Amino acid sequence: MIPIIGHGIKTMSIGFLTREEDALVWRGPILHKVLRQFVKDVNWGHLDWLVVDLPPGTGDVQLSLAQLVKASGALMVTTPQQIAFRDVRRAVTMFSKVNVPILGLVENMSYFICPHCHEKTEIFSGSHPDKREISEGFSIETLARIPIEPSIAQSGEKGVPIVFSEPESETSKKFMELAELLKKKLGE
Amino acid sequence: MIPIIGHGIKTMSIGFLTREEDALVWRGPILHKVLRQFVKDVNWGHLDWLVVDLPPGTGDVQLSLAQLVKASGALMVTTPQQIAFRDVRRAVTMFSKVNVPILGLVENMSYFICPHCHEKTEIFSGSHPDKREISEGFSIETLARIPIEPSIAQSGEKGVPIVFSEPESETSKKFMELAELLKKKLGE
Repeated sequence: MIPIIGHGIKTMSIGFLTREEDALVWRGPILHKVLRQFVKDVNWGHLDWLVVDLPPGTGDVQLSLAQLVKASGALMVTTPQQIAFRDVRRAVTMFSKVNVPILGLVENMSYFICPHCHEKTEIFSGSHPDKREISEGFSIETLARIPIEPSIAQSGEKGVPIVFSEPESETSKKFMELAELLKKKLGE
Repeated sequence: MIPIIGHGIKTMSIGFLTREEDALVWRGPILHKVLRQFVKDVNWGHLDWLVVDLPPGTGDVQLSLAQLVKASGALMVTTPQQIAFRDVRRAVTMFSKVNVPILGLVENMSYFICPHCHEKTEIFSGSHPDKREISEGFSIETLARIPIEPSIAQSGEKGVPIVFSEPESETSKKFMELAELLKKKLGE
């Protein structure tokens, strides 16, 4: 399989191989095979990094991936609520068990700037700008706080990442800073 | 197993049976067993309705549940973006395959009312107040549009549903209207 190149990035997705209305009613073993094909049978060529966007949770996909590749690190993405952070704690525990280093935390939907009055609202309580405790004496560093913002949603709908459509925006700068931080952490 | 009763509702969750920091690294077959236990081995007693909150997607849990119980209907919950709605289309296709009727659509995070200036922002474009097309000639009815709102997040954090903590709020009224609509649809 040959990956599709968009904005300079090679991509592969199950969405490229199915009709939009098809339901992918797949149990774990099939999911495992597809994941294996995406890692081994795609003509990736030279890559700086292979980024895998995982669904939430600690199930079949996460387990299979950890068995298929030796991951350099896992980046946790969450919304600020305590109840969402519980899932992060579970995922951190899982990735530790399978020896995948945790790179840090990205807080999504962190706050909202009203386009009418420009006031800031932290819609979800529990935002932590610094770091959050996983267990006693073990915390995870917050690498970025991304606002909930119409322009991010719009850029997603149009298929043009906000770092291309509005590179000078505050949000784009946050994404670029996050990328730099990750490069450093991964020792590039 | 005896369910925990909160706000008049019997509940059972894997979260009641595990420590908060435990990762549930379960493949599909174990998930299937747990789901089976939750349906068959919990002393539910008399129930008006059994509501099962499913994770996103069309995977093991959805399949197993459809095999375990004869569901009266599936309620789709989505955010307004086109890209999120694609997953709804897939789920509708899956539930149709296993003969589960589709009750309708709830649009979550539909809009935001700024607490400072009271202006409304549709953060995610693509909101459809009426109905949305699944395929040619087949559409899904929008039963409710729920705003993204700090008080919903706060009530979730405190463990007190907003219909109890702020029963007179617009959002609570929307939830109650949705419940009435569903009761009607289910022929109660």
